[in-house]
Amino acid sequence: MTDRLDAQIAFLKEADKLKSVLRASRLISADRHENSAEHSWHIMLHALVLADQAGPQVRIDRVLRMLLLHDIVEIDAGDAPIHGDVDHVAMARAEAEAARRLFGLLPADQADDFRTLWEEFEAAETPDALFAKAIDRFQTPVINLENGGGTWTEYRVTLEQLDTRVGVPIRRGAPGLWDWLQPRLAAFFSAGARSD
Amino acid sequence: MTDRLDAQIAFLKEADKLKSVLRASRLISADRHENSAEHSWHIMLHALVLADQAGPQVRIDRVLRMLLLHDIVEIDAGDAPIHGDVDHVAMARAEAEAARRLFGLLPADQADDFRTLWEEFEAAETPDALFAKAIDRFQTPVINLENGGGTWTEYRVTLEQLDTRVGVPIRRGAPGLWDWLQPRLAAFFSAGARSD
Repeated sequence: MTDRLDAQIAFLKEADKLKSVLRASRLISADRHENSAEHSWHIMLHALVLADQAGPQVRIDRVLRMLLLHDIVEIDAGDAPIHGDVDHVAMARAEAEAARRLFGLLPADQADDFRTLWEEFEAAETPDALFAKAIDRFQTPVINLENGGGTWTEYRVTLEQLDTRVGVPIRRGAPGLWDWLQPRLAAFFSAGARSD
Repeated sequence: MTDRLDAQIAFLKEADKLKSVLRASRLISADRHENSAEHSWHIMLHALVLADQAGPQVRIDRVLRMLLLHDIVEIDAGDAPIHGDVDHVAMARAEAEAARRLFGLLPADQADDFRTLWEEFEAAETPDALFAKAIDRFQTPVINLENGGGTWTEYRVTLEQLDTRVGVPIRRGAPGLWDWLQPRLAAFFSAGARSD
């Protein structure tokens, strides 16, 4: 039991590094970039609060576990900005290797469970994963609307690009959230605030 | 439904401020203070990984929800350092008022549910709350052991004080974690590292 606990605590100490992985997006206050640990907490809160936007097959507690783990691979692989110029094949390879190393710090049963849950999230096919992905995509646009455009300005993003990169996954997993968000995005972009 | 969603998103935007509430403790890397949002994520990860330290009555998914919400009151009330000179009666009053205002941003049914869960955590009487409290107390000592003493040095904490402030709640909710931690604390303090 001590070996098991030693392995678990070694993993939890390594996970502390997620607090130092910075995302492209900023806080609503805009005074610094968001890190992936606090982002994970925030989207878990979104999933719990917005649970009534999920379909009847979605189990929110599984979604919460999925979101708790979903960014840990970034400790090794870094964050890939959604609007950045990313080699997605290389990134997927780096993240799979990161999942092996990081979850592999845990006892074998937990390593398997956690990696399986992370792979389900990445595959974005089950109802739980589709809702989790929708929630993950929803938070940043809400922040950007509040802080004057955020990453949209920095990466020169168009409304059409947002419809593909954000609209598609949100419509698949939580269409009601897209109904709320889309007119606000359209108003923001038509006001020309993006190019300020 | 739109009013409901507007209220939920207003709450989620307000919750972003938890990322700017700084705790007394630092990251393992020691290069900055930890904020309460990333702390919340980290202790949820502790609860999931260390679930086999919980008693048979503990429902981990309820514990995760409790820990997801447990620090939100700090947006208004601030963080009370465990080793600081805190007026606990005044703090409890400020936190109760914060819970009313912050959870009160949500639709009434969620406001009631969230405040009830937070009050259960604070009361520390149910098996779920006792395990959640134990986990909340366990993370910082593990960090302090890694980064040279952290808040123990800053607040001139003794091993005896730690036994009361940290040992008691951990023994009540997760005694196996205290069995792991206590000899490490004793070794750290007997080595005199605290007064470096």
